[in-house]
Amino acid sequence: MPKLWNETIDKHRAAVRDAALDAMAKLVAEHGLVALTMSQIAEQAGIGRATLYKYFPDAHTVLTAWHEREITAHLDQLAAVVDPADPAVVRLQAVLQTYAHIQRHRAGHHGSELATLLHRGEHVERAQRRLRDFIQHLLAEAAQAGDLRDDVPADELAGYCLHALTAASTVTGQEAVHRLVAVTLDGLRPAPPAHQQR
Amino acid sequence: MPKLWNETIDKHRAAVRDAALDAMAKLVAEHGLVALTMSQIAEQAGIGRATLYKYFPDAHTVLTAWHEREITAHLDQLAAVVDPADPAVVRLQAVLQTYAHIQRHRAGHHGSELATLLHRGEHVERAQRRLRDFIQHLLAEAAQAGDLRDDVPADELAGYCLHALTAASTVTGQEAVHRLVAVTLDGLRPAPPAHQQR
Repeated sequence: MPKLWNETIDKHRAAVRDAALDAMAKLVAEHGLVALTMSQIAEQAGIGRATLYKYFPDAHTVLTAWHEREITAHLDQLAAVVDPADPAVVRLQAVLQTYAHIQRHRAGHHGSELATLLHRGEHVERAQRRLRDFIQHLLAEAAQAGDLRDDVPADELAGYCLHALTAASTVTGQEAVHRLVAVTLDGLRPAPPAHQQR
Repeated sequence: MPKLWNETIDKHRAAVRDAALDAMAKLVAEHGLVALTMSQIAEQAGIGRATLYKYFPDAHTVLTAWHEREITAHLDQLAAVVDPADPAVVRLQAVLQTYAHIQRHRAGHHGSELATLLHRGEHVERAQRRLRDFIQHLLAEAAQAGDLRDDVPADELAGYCLHALTAASTVTGQEAVHRLVAVTLDGLRPAPPAHQQR
């Protein structure tokens, strides 16, 4: 096939796939996760059921694919707010602030049911691992610079951060999100914080 | 009906209800949340589909009822570890430690999908509200005693604690759970921690 033709097919396939994922998110937001079917997703996406089956074997796969797409998009967002010239602790702060706002936004957008759902699946785990590695790397760098605690492994601190900030989905107002980020960061301070006395 | 007869019926009804909830938890742990049906729950519970419908109108209601039962049980567990003679900050520490262990246990038991799922519904929200109130009350008391920060509202700190500790479902080993609780508590320390210098 000529290259252009291939590209058109690729574009078309991506569009169908995206329509299915959007449909899935909408259905779950409206009806919850229970009894989500391929027929519902196809109808919502405006595609045939047979077509949908060419892309996904079952509804759970649609859900995990959607989730993978979300995490990857968030990772791009987080990477974009970082200024490489800043010290690690400053970059970390920017990243955590952005992540908290994403959590808050997701809560309003998809409902708490989706916002806090962890899906299984190889692809999702890989995407989540990348997100966690990204945070972990910043934490390790900041700890090495003496700006963060080094008595707890960076991967555990990354888990702490990512989970603590999901609380952003339950608070009201931007100010509360800022306070949540501040409290979460305080949990990361080095043990003898002589320079932090106020 | 005589009282004994009534009690027998009540017991029977409770047993059927519990069987349905256990079935639901098992199905979700095995197959995930998508496409969970009343037929599956009935079969897993070893009861007829018609019987199940006498107890629950749909699968989502079974799920929320199960979740409500879980939260209520956890609340009882948390209340049991508290020694009223201890200062609030000590009681809080015991409660958060226990909550982290519950999160860890749940992760192994039901998988991360269930462990982090927030279900909607009036009953669940009430149970969750009680859990959050319980933590919030301890936080407020400890803050008033000067042992915890008072620059952030106690209900926001409660949300922070409960979310941060769900990270326990991702760590390996008891020691890591202890470290998570320690880090989470450090986020709650009062702003000028002169007495905490090590």
